[in-house]
Amino acid sequence: MTTDPRPFPGTPLGDTIAAVRPRDAAAERAARERLARMTKPPGSLGVLEDVAAQLAGIAGECPAPLPTPVAVAVFAADHGVHAQRVTPWPQEVTAQMVANFARGGAVVNAFAAQLGADVVVVDVGVATSYAVEPTDRLLSRKVRYGTADLAVGPAMTVEEARRAVEVGIEVALALAADHGCLVTGDMGITNTTASAALICAFTGADPAAATGRGTGVDDPTLARKVAVVTRAVARVGERPTTPERALAALAEVGGLEHAALAGFVLGAAAARVPVLLDGVIAGSAALVAAALCPPAMQHALAGHVSAEPGHAVALRALGLRPLLGLDLRLGEGTGALLAAPLVAGAARALQDVATFDSAGVTQKSG
Amino acid sequence: MTTDPRPFPGTPLGDTIAAVRPRDAAAERAARERLARMTKPPGSLGVLEDVAAQLAGIAGECPAPLPTPVAVAVFAADHGVHAQRVTPWPQEVTAQMVANFARGGAVVNAFAAQLGADVVVVDVGVATSYAVEPTDRLLSRKVRYGTADLAVGPAMTVEEARRAVEVGIEVALALAADHGCLVTGDMGITNTTASAALICAFTGADPAAATGRGTGVDDPTLARKVAVVTRAVARVGERPTTPERALAALAEVGGLEHAALAGFVLGAAAARVPVLLDGVIAGSAALVAAALCPPAMQHALAGHVSAEPGHAVALRALGLRPLLGLDLRLGEGTGALLAAPLVAGAARALQDVATFDSAGVTQKSG
Repeated sequence: MTTDPRPFPGTPLGDTIAAVRPRDAAAERAARERLARMTKPPGSLGVLEDVAAQLAGIAGECPAPLPTPVAVAVFAADHGVHAQRVTPWPQEVTAQMVANFARGGAVVNAFAAQLGADVVVVDVGVATSYAVEPTDRLLSRKVRYGTADLAVGPAMTVEEARRAVEVGIEVALALAADHGCLVTGDMGITNTTASAALICAFTGADPAAATGRGTGVDDPTLARKVAVVTRAVARVGERPTTPERALAALAEVGGLEHAALAGFVLGAAAARVPVLLDGVIAGSAALVAAALCPPAMQHALAGHVSAEPGHAVALRALGLRPLLGLDLRLGEGTGALLAAPLVAGAARALQDVATFDSAGVTQKSG
Repeated sequence: MTTDPRPFPGTPLGDTIAAVRPRDAAAERAARERLARMTKPPGSLGVLEDVAAQLAGIAGECPAPLPTPVAVAVFAADHGVHAQRVTPWPQEVTAQMVANFARGGAVVNAFAAQLGADVVVVDVGVATSYAVEPTDRLLSRKVRYGTADLAVGPAMTVEEARRAVEVGIEVALALAADHGCLVTGDMGITNTTASAALICAFTGADPAAATGRGTGVDDPTLARKVAVVTRAVARVGERPTTPERALAALAEVGGLEHAALAGFVLGAAAARVPVLLDGVIAGSAALVAAALCPPAMQHALAGHVSAEPGHAVALRALGLRPLLGLDLRLGEGTGALLAAPLVAGAARALQDVATFDSAGVTQKSG
């Protein structure tokens, strides 16, 4: 039995997967060599030396261009599993927050304003109406009005999942044309439930260990949430390791914003632009992206590790070390946005810092 | 027996200590109340909610002004304990790096350029000459040409220690006039040895546990370093808890840049400007500042925790949670500079984010 080397032929998803390349090993080696000659003790920049080398590998040149300007795409969608009473928040809050993002009133807007980053909101499946009109900063790309209830059946069709993935690809490619760093953002009441289901489906984790309190649910609600995740994951069966089965698992237990985020990661990788992952929603979507196209994850960095327990499970499975750990559990892209200056600093150091030779600084003996 | 409520009367140090006030509890409460009404789940900004409240308490108003622009002061000095072969780096590297800072070639310059921060280098005790002239960005405030060897006797006189502390105060007050956030920086070959001695003297920690490899020393060098720290700390005796004994301990086993950094923290606190602490050098100096003037530490934040083991010991003793943990061990102010955008983000969120009422977003039920 042979696997088709080109999954999803004739689709934007298939074309994007085919376009993704691994990082450039020569550029990465050149970065490591330059880091060793810079006027600082060897290795003293810790994790940022790995980041600097990764950026060179992504860009295919050393030093890498600065990962600026930064754009965060906030993918918004609703979830049929809301009917299972797994959250105390009304579903309308997704649409209300879309309006809040559009007016610049949310935390992601404040962080973006402080950092000079752009915010784009993408409605990929909001269930209710909102009181603002689409603009070039609020894109209407609705695939359906919220998913079906993943507790009782598939959240969406495989075709819908692919279309939502392709929304993410489209947004990433457009933003990559004039941005040096893409940041994942998300909004969707109940989306930590779908995230936990994806994490369990793609890693084999125990639903009790990977399902968390999200925006703050009580014990009975958490118990319902774990039961829902357990039932949903059972329908997926064994861990999806091929692109086709990954897309099917996404359709079965995921969300429309998860699908779009998986596509966003693929699009960034195809465009050779670093993508900073936010919290548990992005982490679960990245598991899908990794199964759709393993080399795509070489272009991703984990902005932070959130307080939601499934996030650490996902990051371990992805082999990503988070840059920040601030007990954030907000989503919207907030944690990843805060990590963007660290990534830019690593790139700037690789570009600017003098070497021992050029600066006339003596190296240590022995 | 009564303690003089005004230590060091008639000196800039005494005046500064007298000027330091605790944080404003009312402003801090107002910040907590606003954070609870902002359009986000309660507590979802994690550590940054504490930062936002602290900034309001420091400024005495809610929301606090943005902690910008940022200035990092790099205090440079040499150490007589270099004679004990506790580092593989020649002492001249301190002066060479001062020239590198002045020319903009060091990592601290790269990070500052990326963040739009100002860098000021302060020679408070460099032992050898450097090939650049003083400017308003390279201040000559030399108290002496390096300390004496703390392995065999006092590193400096108490009078010299006080003068170096007052250099730090002067620099902090000058920078606070036109900056919203001060960042500690340091350069001094062998200064992790003096830092370990201060940490052990002020916390009672075991020299074997608090002394690290600094810029990367081998096992025999580390053993010599621990032995030197053990001998030096024995001369200090019991933990210094009064301002006078803190200054004496600083003079006995500290460094001139440690003294200046302690003063820098006091000056920032007196000016009600937040001060971001860098690594183990700043952490050990902050222990001195805390003993000189306990309320001063209410105005400090720990930018990161470094790979040097004594740093975590110091932060625990100070009750500070570091914002970053990236295995940095460079100094210069690099780790604290990277944390500055997080602090600014917290302040910006407190200023900008809409409340549930104002944005028309429904709160969770129950």
